[in-house]
Order: sequence, then C-alpha cells, then structure tokens
Amino acid sequence: MVHALLTNAPGGGIDYRDVIIEEEEHDLVLSPLYTGICGTDRGIVNGSLNFAKNPEKSDYLVLGHESVCVVRDSSNSQFKEGDLVVPLVRRPGNCPNCLIGRQDNCSDGNKKEAGVTGKHGFMRSRFNEDSQFVVRIDDPYMEKISVLTEPLKNVVKGFEVIETISKRSVYAGADSSFTNKNCVVIGTGTEAFLYGIMSSEYGFNTALTNRHPLSREKMDLISDFSLNFFDYSTDIAYPFKSEIDLVIDTSGDPATVLKFLRLMNYNGIFLFFGTNGKAPASSINGNDIDHIVERNITIAGSVDAAKVHYIRAVKYLKRWFKSLPVESIITGEYRPEYTEIFKKKPEDEIKSVIKWGE
Amino acid sequence: MVHALLTNAPGGGIDYRDVIIEEEEHDLVLSPLYTGICGTDRGIVNGSLNFAKNPEKSDYLVLGHESVCVVRDSSNSQFKEGDLVVPLVRRPGNCPNCLIGRQDNCSDGNKKEAGVTGKHGFMRSRFNEDSQFVVRIDDPYMEKISVLTEPLKNVVKGFEVIETISKRSVYAGADSSFTNKNCVVIGTGTEAFLYGIMSSEYGFNTALTNRHPLSREKMDLISDFSLNFFDYSTDIAYPFKSEIDLVIDTSGDPATVLKFLRLMNYNGIFLFFGTNGKAPASSINGNDIDHIVERNITIAGSVDAAKVHYIRAVKYLKRWFKSLPVESIITGEYRPEYTEIFKKKPEDEIKSVIKWGE
Amino acid sequence: MVHALLTNAPGGGIDYRDVIIEEEEHDLVLSPLYTGICGTDRGIVNGSLNFAKNPEKSDYLVLGHESVCVVRDSSNSQFKEGDLVVPLVRRPGNCPNCLIGRQDNCSDGNKKEAGVTGKHGFMRSRFNEDSQFVVRIDDPYMEKISVLTEPLKNVVKGFEVIETISKRSVYAGADSSFTNKNCVVIGTGTEAFLYGIMSSEYGFNTALTNRHPLSREKMDLISDFSLNFFDYSTDIAYPFKSEIDLVIDTSGDPATVLKFLRLMNYNGIFLFFGTNGKAPASSINGNDIDHIVERNITIAGSVDAAKVHYIRAVKYLKRWFKSLPVESIITGEYRPEYTEIFKKKPEDEIKSVIKWGE
Amino acid sequence: MVHALLTNAPGGGIDYRDVIIEEEEHDLVLSPLYTGICGTDRGIVNGSLNFAKNPEKSDYLVLGHESVCVVRDSSNSQFKEGDLVVPLVRRPGNCPNCLIGRQDNCSDGNKKEAGVTGKHGFMRSRFNEDSQFVVRIDDPYMEKISVLTEPLKNVVKGFEVIETISKRSVYAGADSSFTNKNCVVIGTGTEAFLYGIMSSEYGFNTALTNRHPLSREKMDLISDFSLNFFDYSTDIAYPFKSEIDLVIDTSGDPATVLKFLRLMNYNGIFLFFGTNGKAPASSINGNDIDHIVERNITIAGSVDAAKVHYIRAVKYLKRWFKSLPVESIITGEYRPEYTEIFKKKPEDEIKSVIKWGE
Repeated sequence: MVHALLTNAPGGGIDYRDVIIEEEEHDLVLSPLYTGICGTDRGIVNGSLNFAKNPEKSDYLVLGHESVCVVRDSSNSQFKEGDLVVPLVRRPGNCPNCLIGRQDNCSDGNKKEAGVTGKHGFMRSRFNEDSQFVVRIDDPYMEKISVLTEPLKNVVKGFEVIETISKRSVYAGADSSFTNKNCVVIGTGTEAFLYGIMSSEYGFNTALTNRHPLSREKMDLISDFSLNFFDYSTDIAYPFKSEIDLVIDTSGDPATVLKFLRLMNYNGIFLFFGTNGKAPASSINGNDIDHIVERNITIAGSVDAAKVHYIRAVKYLKRWFKSLPVESIITGEYRPEYTEIFKKKPEDEIKSVIKWGE
Repeated sequence: MVHALLTNAPGGGIDYRDVIIEEEEHDLVLSPLYTGICGTDRGIVNGSLNFAKNPEKSDYLVLGHESVCVVRDSSNSQFKEGDLVVPLVRRPGNCPNCLIGRQDNCSDGNKKEAGVTGKHGFMRSRFNEDSQFVVRIDDPYMEKISVLTEPLKNVVKGFEVIETISKRSVYAGADSSFTNKNCVVIGTGTEAFLYGIMSSEYGFNTALTNRHPLSREKMDLISDFSLNFFDYSTDIAYPFKSEIDLVIDTSGDPATVLKFLRLMNYNGIFLFFGTNGKAPASSINGNDIDHIVERNITIAGSVDAAKVHYIRAVKYLKRWFKSLPVESIITGEYRPEYTEIFKKKPEDEIKSVIKWGE
Repeated sequence: MVHALLTNAPGGGIDYRDVIIEEEEHDLVLSPLYTGICGTDRGIVNGSLNFAKNPEKSDYLVLGHESVCVVRDSSNSQFKEGDLVVPLVRRPGNCPNCLIGRQDNCSDGNKKEAGVTGKHGFMRSRFNEDSQFVVRIDDPYMEKISVLTEPLKNVVKGFEVIETISKRSVYAGADSSFTNKNCVVIGTGTEAFLYGIMSSEYGFNTALTNRHPLSREKMDLISDFSLNFFDYSTDIAYPFKSEIDLVIDTSGDPATVLKFLRLMNYNGIFLFFGTNGKAPASSINGNDIDHIVERNITIAGSVDAAKVHYIRAVKYLKRWFKSLPVESIITGEYRPEYTEIFKKKPEDEIKSVIKWGE
Repeated sequence: MVHALLTNAPGGGIDYRDVIIEEEEHDLVLSPLYTGICGTDRGIVNGSLNFAKNPEKSDYLVLGHESVCVVRDSSNSQFKEGDLVVPLVRRPGNCPNCLIGRQDNCSDGNKKEAGVTGKHGFMRSRFNEDSQFVVRIDDPYMEKISVLTEPLKNVVKGFEVIETISKRSVYAGADSSFTNKNCVVIGTGTEAFLYGIMSSEYGFNTALTNRHPLSREKMDLISDFSLNFFDYSTDIAYPFKSEIDLVIDTSGDPATVLKFLRLMNYNGIFLFFGTNGKAPASSINGNDIDHIVERNITIAGSVDAAKVHYIRAVKYLKRWFKSLPVESIITGEYRPEYTEIFKKKPEDEIKSVIKWGE
C-alpha cells in the first residue's frame, strides 16, 4: 500500500489516498523526496489534455513526472540505500529512435510517459524502478535543486536541436560568436527561466518576455541571471537594436508565436516548446510564409529529452548551483495532502514542488 | 544598345524595346539563348512583389533570372566564344554568409538579385558578366534543358537543408533507407516536378498534389518520373498507407500548408519554398502548435541556392537528360516580342521559356 | 544440392563442387547471375585474411559478397520470379548501430558478413534470402552492370563520411564550390575508379594515382570519366597547382598513405578505405603528427555501407549507365569452374566477374 | 618603451629588456597581469620550432600567447580602464574560414599568431590591441584563473570537432549517454587536465595517462577532478573494462599515439592535439590501417580555437572555479625577470605563469 496522488485520465480530477498498485519487479525501490508540478499536471487534473491515459487495465493514473527520489532498496550493486536519483519520464517502444535510447524522438508514438500516458508517475510514496531509467545525483546538497533536472533536460535537448539546425548556414556572427545575436524566450515560468539561463550560457543577448509586467521578485531573478525582460503588450520595451535570431516559445499561444515570428532575423531559429491546445487560434497569412522562406527561417518543435540530456542537466545544475540563485526558481513547497495546488497556480509561481516523506 | 524586356519595379508593367544600359566592365560578354519565366517574373510585371527594385539610379529593371547564355566575348582564358554558361541570380553583400559564397543564406538582406532586386536581369540581347558568377554547361546537347539549372538549383539546396535538419533524430527507417517514408510535394509547376524527381532519387515514396485533377499530359509526365499524384480537394486520393515524413510546399498558400502540416508524421520535415504574399490567410490553433511540438516536427524556409548547387544541378540535369523526359517540363517556347506570356499563364504550363537569338 | 565456390576460412583454398547446405527458411530463393571478385575474395583464398571465418558448425565457407541475383521463388508478394536483386553483405547484431540498420557502423563487431565472416556467401547456384536484406534492380538492362552495386555502395557511404567530417570547417572554396579543390584517389582498381567518378560528381578536380604507368585501355577509361592520372613513382606527374584537399586510399599501404598525407592541404580529409594487412610498415614521425594538428586534417576509416547506400548506388549506376562507359570497368567474365581467377589477378584487371547460370 | 620578453625566431633565445615597439593604433591599450608559459614558448626559445617567425621588418619577436590583461586606456565606450580581458592569439587572413572569424581553421596558412608567427606576443608591459580580438572577464575574482582561458579554449574547440565527427555513426551508448564510454587523455600537463575535466563533463569515464607514475600532488588533483590515471609503461594499469572510444593526445609522440590507436574501439575518435616535431619516429603497419578502416575510426588534428570558444572557455572557468580546484592547475608563479623558466620546466609543473605589474 502506498500514498499516491491519483487522477483518472483523460477525464481528470485529483485525489491523495492509499492505494495498492501491482508493479513489475525492478532492481530499485524508490521514494520521492520532491516532485515538481507543471502545466501538464494541471492540464491532466482539469481534464484538458486528451492524450493523457491511464495505464492498461488501471482505472486511475498516478501523477508526477518531475522528481528527485531516494533509493529505499536496491538489488543492483551500483546503487545503495540512500542514493539520490532522478527517474526518466519516457520509456521506449520499438521504433528506431527508441531502440537507441532516443524515445524523446519516438518515431511512432508507442513510447510511454510516466504520470502522463499509460504509465504511473512518481507521486506515490514508493515504487519499483529499473535502474537503466534513472540518473544519479552524487551531491547530497543538490537534493532539492535536482527536482529541476527534469525541466532542465528539456532545455538541454532544445539546444541540441538548435545546434543541429544552425548548421544550415553561418549562424554565428562574423567573429564566430553570438555576442551580437539576440534571443527572446516567450514566457516567464520555469522552462522560460531555464531556457533563458542556457541561452545566456551560449552567449546570446537574452530577454524573457510576457504580456504583463513582472513582480519585483521575478525582476530581481531576471537580473540575477543576467537576463533582460520586456512586456510585449506595450510597444516601447524591446531591448535589442536588431531583430531576433533565436526565439524560444514556452506559451504555445498562436498569436504570440506569430507576433515574434514576424520579428525574426535572417537565418533565425524558432523553437516551439510550450503547448496549449486550448489557446485561441490566430491568423497566418501569405506574407508570414514569405518571411519564413525569404529569410531561411527554421521552426522546430521539441519535446522531452533523452538520458544523455538528464545527465548534462545534472552537470549544469551542479555548476549553476554554486554561482547562480537557481534554487530561487522553486517558489513554493507543499505537502502532498494539499491537492489545491493542482487546481490553482499560486500568484507569482515559478516552480511549485511537493515535499514528500516523514 | 540592346533589346531588353523591361519593367518598372515595384510598380510593374512589361515592355520589349531597345535601351542603352551603362554597365560595369567584366571578363565575359553574354547573350541569352533561353530564359525561363516563373511566378516571380509575373509577380513583378503585375506589380504584386513589393520587394522588387530597380537598380540604383535606374528608372527600369531588366527582367530575367533563369537563363542559359552563350559567351560572345571573353577576356578570360578559361572561357571562349561559343561556350555555354548559366549566370547566378544572387550577388553577395558583406555578411558572413555572402563572404563565403553563400549569398543564398545572406544574413542581412544586402545581396542583390538579377532581374528582381537592384540588378538588371538576363532578358536582354547582350550583357557583361563576371566569370566568377557563372557555371559552365559543357554538353552542347544541353543547350535548351540547361535553362532548368536555375529552378533545379533551388531543389538541390532544399535537400541540403532537409539533410541538415534530418540529423536531429533517426529520420530514416529501421533499415536505414527511405523506402517506407512518404513525401508530398504541394504544387504541379516546374519546381514541384523537380522537387518530386529529387525526392524520388533520395528514395522517398513521392506524390505531387494540387487542388484539381491534372491533364492527361501532366499525368503522363507524373508517371514517366515514377511519381504519384492526388487531388487534395477530394478525400479519396491520398496514396500512402502512413503519414507524411516530408512535405515540400511550392504554393505559399497558408490553408494548404496547414492542411498538410496536420498530416505530418513524427520527426517530419516541412520545407517551405513557394511564396504568395497575396494568398488568403488561414487559422493556426493551439493543437497545430501542439502537433509540431509533440512530434518534433521541423519547418524550414528555403530560398535561392549557392554556386555549388548550380554546379550539382547541371550534373543532375546531365544524368537525368539521358534517362528521364525532363525536357518535357518545358511546355512552351516563345519569342521575346510576345510579352503577353508575362501576363497570362498558358493552360497546362509547366515551364514557359523565351528563345532568344538570331 | 547446389554448386558452390568453397574455401575453408581462415586457412584458404578454393574448390568448386556440389554441396548440401542446411539453410534457414526465408521468403526469397535466389540464384546469382553475376558475382564479382575482389581483393577480399583472393585474400581469403590465399589464407591471408585472418578475420575470415566459416559459419558456426560448418567446415567450409561459400565465397562471394558482390552479386546480382535473380529471384527463383518468392513467398513475398512484393517480389516475383525473375526479379533482379542485389543482396546485402552485412547482417546486423544487437548494437545501437545494427538496431537502426547501420551494421556498417557496427559498434561491437557482432555483425556477420556473407562470404567473409560467419555466413555463407553468394557464389552458389541457389540460396534462401530474407527480402529485407536485398535491394531491387528495376531495369533489366542493368543485369550485368548492377554487379557493381556492392563496390559502389562503399563509395556512397565514403562520401557520406566525408560530408559529415567536412562540416568541421568551411571546406568548400570561397565561391561555395569544389571547383578549385583537388582530390587524389590512390589505386586504379574498381573502387578507385568508382571513388574517382563520384569525386568528380561532387565537383573536385580528381586524379587517380598508382606507382606505375597505366595501359592504353585504362588511360582511355580515365579520360572517358573526365579524370586525371599520375604515376606517383616519378616526380613530374602531379597534375594540380595546389595541395590536396581530399585523399581517398584504396591501397592500404602505409608508405603510400604517408606520402600523400604529407601533401595534404589545410582542413584536408583523408579517407582510408583499402586494407592490406601484409603491406610493409612505414615510419611516421613527429612532423607528420604536427602536420595533421596544425592543418586541422582529418583521417577517417570507412568500411562497408548500409541499405540506403545500396539503394543510392543503384540510382547512380542507372544514371551513369546512360552517360558514362561504366560497364568497361568489368574487364573480364569467367565461368565458376575457372577457379584460377581467385589465385591470379589478370593483367589489367579492373573488375573480374563470374557469370553464373543455365 | 616597454619591458618585454624577447626571442629571435626561429633561432631562439630569451631576453627580458626594454624595447621600443612601433605599433598600429587600436582602441585599447593593455597590460598583462598574468601570462602563461607552454611548450610552444619553450620550443621557440630553444629554437626547435621552425615555423616561429619574427614580425615583418623586426629582428625579434615578443613572446607570449596565453594571457589575462587589464585595460590601461580605451577609446571604445564598451571598455574602460581596469577591465579584464583575454586577447586572442590568431589574427585572420583572407581565406573563407578567416573571413567568418574561424582563423583557427585558416585554409591557407595566412593567419598570424601573437607570440609565435609574425606578430608580437603579450609578454610586454603594455601594447595596443583591437577590441574585436579580446574577450572580457567580468568577474574580478577570476583575475588569475582566467590565464587558463587560452589553453581551455583549445579544449572547447577540440570537443566541437569531436561532436561533429561523432555524427558519422551512433557514437553514444544504447541509452543515449556516454556512461559506458571510455576516454583516455595522453599526457598530464595543463591541456591534458583541461581535456580530462571536459571529457568528464561530457560524461565519459576518463583517465589521464603517462609513461611514469605521478607525484602525490598530481594524483590528488586527478582525484579532485574525478578522473583516473594510469601509467602506460606498466601493463597492469588500464582502468576500463572495454576498449577506448575517445583518445585525446597532448604528447605528439608517434609511438604513444600508435600504442593507443591499437586499443581503440569501433567508431572510436582520436583527437591529435599535441605536437612534438622532434619526437622519435615510429612504425605504422598494414594492420594499423586495417584497424582504422574496419572499425570506422576517425583521427582528427585540432589546433587553436575561435572567439566563440574563448567565450565559452570563460563561462566554463567561471562555473568550475566555484566547484573544482582548477586554480591548482597553476603550479608556479614567476617574475618576468626569471627567464630560466623558459629553459627548464620545473619538476611537477602543470602550468607556470608569469605575474606582471607594479
């Protein structure tokens, strides 16, 4: 018997209760220390994600795909009780990408996603896990911060995609660097902050944007991370002297996406990361297509990430942890009993997490 | 004094008359043998391309960017009278891409395009040309067919872009090939046929599509090139058993583009090539963005091509010429005096060309 | 019972006799029409290839990895009696490369090679074959020429490797093309000619080289393929004005390889394709390493190829067949009874083939 | 008049004296705070680098290509007195790579190198510098450590080369990561340590190696950086269970390079970074070439790096500085007067630096 946060996909709902889950045997037994809550979780709970799915023969779905866990028991000599690990979200099917550990690029949709599609998630007091699908956190001081591994791994993959695409032309400036290249990240949530920090690591002039001003706290964080911010609902705010070379969208909102598409520079790259199936439609016209063609612009959707990206995300977190206030991205900590957190986003939330245990 | 086909950009109009053009000295003097007419030429003539531009200090623009020419005079020992050449459309500015011969990827818009933006084109009885901006046709039997070099070079570059982007995942099938991968080319004009032939060379199952049925003649060509065709305005026609892995658009029409975007497979690549600034707008919604994200789809605009692509286009034409009826793509031949050809597209045209000379 | 050309690997020997071979069931039954003989076959026969291996539990090995076959029987609706096919040499193991059809890049050596390591080859009057490991020849006129598919597929992969590596810098000239780039292919056998033709397709100035002059017939072929030749044992012969940007070795001879390494240009790429385990050693010194480092030179070994390369090889052969005398590469045709052909290379051989049948 | 460390290239010698140097005007005046000494400096001083060259019309060469400097005067509003900067070593010529800021990949050898070929170096009390050839150090605490920017930028480029080459096959393991991939770095000097740290960042199991045991101090550093070490002159030491997937050589020694080449795994990558023109020759045989071919091994020379790599090197230093004892790589600090440091390498040196100023 475990305590678990349950929903009934795709209908939705949220319940924290005891349940007996039949599980496959695996070489690890894990308990979550922290689990993160993101838009996907809230979408499942409010019933708006129609691709969410209970596991086969189950009439509920355990939520949770962002987590850091502690090893409770291990039959694998490489892991011992007390070790910290982050489990992967996606589990492979049989397509060529899944066969080489790239289920993030699954070619046929037959992968599974813990806490989302067809596989119970990590928001339960204990579960079995296959050690090939976890990455290790070797620094105990990173216990809390490493709950950001999962959102950050998306960013690591996103930049892998950007690097691949950028090879189609000389994307850097005449001095080989990105010193005079501009990046705008649409959104001001967890992924937006993490994409912004990474863009800045790559050397882009980087700004986050949203359709409203930010609180004092968020503006301070923007500044701590050496980023810029502008409110795109007003005209005066755009901070750069030239057009945008890289846009990263975390909103999924068609009108916003089109607005920034029209501001893109020659050879510009637009990464679509955010999704919002219920966002209002917007109108794309012949000149938009012309703009994409005449400027050799590339738009790339990017979802999830592979184990290699989790591992790099852990390395980034480890370094950033010592020099940047990344822990401030975690703006709220809640108990699993407090299921309201799935229904209403706290004002000024960047990342809310659930603290498990004891 | 030369005979030339003139317009007044961006207002439009068409006139065939004698004119004295002050030119820079160059090492070659060329005369066109054939010049091709495409949608861009007609767009300039009817005044719908607002980026078209007369050369500085000129109150007219000589049309023409697709041509095969004969050398009339040469001060360069590598070329002699009678040699056949195809001149390049774009001339470089000073951005990093232009500096390495990749003005097709110009980073700042400061390149020029013969017959389109700021530089007189090739539809005049004689002009000076810099030998570094021509490619040679070494087979005299290719005199006529080589007018397709310019449209084909776009296709060669387009597939270079596709190859670069495809590296973001395992794009081929589990047997390493494209035998079970599907390509749809939207359109049935010159570029659509050439993209279709190339897609088939790469091994994709390939279909052209349009919103109406094709004439007997075009259907025969489709068959000669081992391609498929379907009329997308009816429902029954789609020839493949699975979704589309590669879509190449030559229409520039938002509604059509969105229709096929929604049919794209995981890891699909959509090449935007066609432009039509006057096409009616269409509505893109949250689910479309979701589809792009969740399936790791990439959309890439691609315009023009570099000298290396012209050279490869000549090689392809040379090989295809002996085994495929590529000359049938040229469906009409006109005299320069017949300026009506710029105003009205002949029924069933694939490529109309102007025959110069004598 | 089949007639087969047998050896006993790795000891060697050659015998043409009747033998009963227990085979797995597969959906195709094939008979060879032509099989090619290469240095590997002769190496196995004279016992100099110590990696050659009989199939498990067999005390002989059927030779033959280059072939074109006719379908004798098929339980697969996609193939019918009389169809022409070329079977693949390598069969996958379980490494990540093998799992995606890239057994040419096998990560652990657990693939098998027909006629070479652990799997009977194609020099037998009839054998079962799995249709997923054949490529189709759809033009009956290509019956003989398509025995070159196997050697040519190596070239297609070789250039894939070259293209990947060339992305580490601007490899093309300032005009984006290879017009002023030089390629030397070491050797004058089948692979050397095929690499030379392909290099010329890519636009390199291309020369084949050997340590002796060539016969009239070979020199005529060199000229037919628009290639150059020089005898590197004399000093006067090098045909280019600058250093070499691409060297492709088909000799496997250390002294020759080092000689040309020292002539390589900045950013040069050296493809190692030929092998000769018994070649005399040669001396590499500190300046050679310095030359590789200071000039950013890359040396890449390349072996075998994947199904996608076989398919492209067929396309190339089909085009070349109509415009180049590629059939002249086949310099001799023998009966399977004539086993001497495995022991002594005919003077002036490029490719010797065995004609099967009746 | 400035104090400078002078040699007379390529003959050699070392002198610290006052000298009047005619300089071009530039927007910055710099003074070094620290300059690093490497094998190249010692090679120039002892006259063994025959490519070293005085500037045109100069009968001496100011040494020094590794430095961190302070801005003394600036006519550029982006820089002010007191700012810390690292100047670039190479200055571009006119080849395609130089034109896009990639003089590290210079196509024709017409670039210049400060302190090495044709341009005075940074070991002088004051010099003019063009701001486009410096990168900024924005953290005053990095004053000393940032003298490692120059050696580290080579590592950043080296891994860019490795990433490009690794695309020729599936280079990662079946789980997409490098967890089971082994890297050996040959050497135990500055570059070896920096390559080792970076290899570990990428996730390789990493070992440094040399032909002798290391001191207690160096072994402690090895351990601090989570690296392994083995003495390859003894047989028992190799720490991995499988062959080597990545070898990085900093020795330039042919015999050592060949030793490790023979231990390379399928699809292995061997980066040649070290040079030693005077190293004894070694013998490469047919089986070595066979090994490279049959295993699809790639060997890549890599020299210098571009501005983008300097910028990333600064970012890495900034992060590592807080979590790793990178400053311990600097094992000795000397005054410019102590010219003996150019003649004799201190026992147990990793990096010796000269402290300038006052």
